[in-house]
Amino acid sequence: MPRLFNFSAGPAAMPLSVLEQVQQELVELPGQGMSVMEMSHRSKRFEEINASAEARIRGLLGLGDEFDVLFLQGGASLQFSTVPLNCLQAGESADYVLTDEWSTKALKEADRVADDRGACARVAATTKDENFARVPRQDELDLDPKAQYVHITGNNTLFGTEYFYEPDTGGVPLVSDASSHILSRPLTVNKYGLIYAGAQKNLGPAGVTLVIVREDMLRALPPAVPTMLDYKIHAKAKSLYNTPNSFGIWVLDLVCEWLEAQGGLAGIQTKNIEKSALLYDAIDATGFYRGHAGTESRSRMNVTFRLPSEELEEKFAAEATAAGLDGLKGHRDVGGLRASLYNAFPREGAVALTEFMAEFERTNG
Amino acid sequence: MPRLFNFSAGPAAMPLSVLEQVQQELVELPGQGMSVMEMSHRSKRFEEINASAEARIRGLLGLGDEFDVLFLQGGASLQFSTVPLNCLQAGESADYVLTDEWSTKALKEADRVADDRGACARVAATTKDENFARVPRQDELDLDPKAQYVHITGNNTLFGTEYFYEPDTGGVPLVSDASSHILSRPLTVNKYGLIYAGAQKNLGPAGVTLVIVREDMLRALPPAVPTMLDYKIHAKAKSLYNTPNSFGIWVLDLVCEWLEAQGGLAGIQTKNIEKSALLYDAIDATGFYRGHAGTESRSRMNVTFRLPSEELEEKFAAEATAAGLDGLKGHRDVGGLRASLYNAFPREGAVALTEFMAEFERTNG
Repeated sequence: MPRLFNFSAGPAAMPLSVLEQVQQELVELPGQGMSVMEMSHRSKRFEEINASAEARIRGLLGLGDEFDVLFLQGGASLQFSTVPLNCLQAGESADYVLTDEWSTKALKEADRVADDRGACARVAATTKDENFARVPRQDELDLDPKAQYVHITGNNTLFGTEYFYEPDTGGVPLVSDASSHILSRPLTVNKYGLIYAGAQKNLGPAGVTLVIVREDMLRALPPAVPTMLDYKIHAKAKSLYNTPNSFGIWVLDLVCEWLEAQGGLAGIQTKNIEKSALLYDAIDATGFYRGHAGTESRSRMNVTFRLPSEELEEKFAAEATAAGLDGLKGHRDVGGLRASLYNAFPREGAVALTEFMAEFERTNG
Repeated sequence: MPRLFNFSAGPAAMPLSVLEQVQQELVELPGQGMSVMEMSHRSKRFEEINASAEARIRGLLGLGDEFDVLFLQGGASLQFSTVPLNCLQAGESADYVLTDEWSTKALKEADRVADDRGACARVAATTKDENFARVPRQDELDLDPKAQYVHITGNNTLFGTEYFYEPDTGGVPLVSDASSHILSRPLTVNKYGLIYAGAQKNLGPAGVTLVIVREDMLRALPPAVPTMLDYKIHAKAKSLYNTPNSFGIWVLDLVCEWLEAQGGLAGIQTKNIEKSALLYDAIDATGFYRGHAGTESRSRMNVTFRLPSEELEEKFAAEATAAGLDGLKGHRDVGGLRASLYNAFPREGAVALTEFMAEFERTNG
């Protein structure tokens, strides 16, 4: 069947050219006599792939030597625990800003660590009372100047909100779950002590977790912490302490190469602004569609909107799917519609959705 | 270049027919309009793939409903911690049988958990004094009848040894790291409380960890345990608590389908006996080659052997590589040569190696 416009929130659309290269080289990585999936992770060729992926991440984000770049497993959900296990010790405190279900889960895992260690995970702000329709403003952040870090969720897939400023923390390192907007635009990396992201939205296939960690965040840990959850172990081994998701790292490297060809983060940012503006303009053009996110927090990655009734929303999603616009049903906790427009999502898909929206309103409005 | 005979210990050779199907369906999973890598893990089609992979594992091993089958991440190395975190509580003890570096690492992680909780991880036997050249006999096991479990490493890739009996534990559940021989032969599953395995040898690509756990092993955990390391969470969510390695699970399902076509575990066992016998017969035929593993413990998956000198071993490995026999160099901790013959490794490769061995001895013996 023809390729669908895939608005899924993740796993999500990947660059077609990357998929085609993966296909072409699937059975034999050129010159290797075997598939990349069959190669020892200790082989020279795989070490090159691993190093290339790291170098591209460094280059795209402009990371200095003070950062380690790790390719781990377990998704952002495992990082919810790994971050406090590594960075929050007895008698210390960390600040959490709650902007959706994911940051709430991150806090819950930090609480477990904090309770066990005699530390504290504090809520520095939350927009729950507004159904997480925006991220907090700087003046709403109740930050502890002595915190070890301030945890934010850079982009919130469920509600379609995104930070467009780095909170001023007075020098306390930011920790960001950047799963759903990593590499979608330039980032002021020197404000961050740690950035983590599941791969399945902007980086590659699910099963790789990118962790970027500044070396001053790496500390001696209590002996009870599992070796596999100690960032220092993975940093020292260049992500090859044990067998990594080698296929996933290979594809991530190809996705980053594709991103370089899009003009890097500045280039892709321009495209992401254009794509999301097409949808936000369509939403704002009439009273039929209603955006969920506050204007100042509107995510470029996940555009959430409502229709006049849930029945119409159901109908919209079903008819859109039939028209080749797949994955628009909103998250079960939020309802409505959600159009995810990650880096690899094509502009034509956003145009097609605006046309579908206009036609749907004409016949149902 | 032509396809090499890939003797790598893992990641390792995969069935060519599976690689070809993955290639064919890489850009579009038939009828889906997108790659399997782009599909939501909450989609109906991916849930079918996930359920199919689970059903095939159940069918191949003959698992009853008392077992949960989980597809996790992080490799066996993370299970070294997850097992005691779930199955070893305050005041309890677990037995560990040491047969190589991996079981020693498993014990080290259990010790961390035990020390933290006021529990005990005990050495029930070790063959370290014999350079791990065999697994212990039943009469050498110093088992604690009150242990929560007895941990073994079913097959030892480094030294090329394998258990061909299930230790009689008097009813204490066995826990096995079966990474390097899972699905290579039938298993008396009712002796096991838990079996875990990284996928990259017999199951599929690296980045999926299979965990088979009997429900009586699942207990209420102290609150400090990360949610992502609680088996019950993943069992309840059918491995979809968070985004799994969806591509890896898809390939694992195809590998299991291929295994069914080989006659299941009984069928593949016959082939694995034949393949490994070819090499062991070649080793035993002369005094030039010397097997590392004791006869009664000789692994069918990893055949380890030495030559009269390290210089000859280097030469052998280099010339074999040039002849299309790749990955024969032994592990750095053991030296010598190692031929890994997992399920997907073709018989012709074993024949080719015996021919190469004969010729190498003729010219260097």
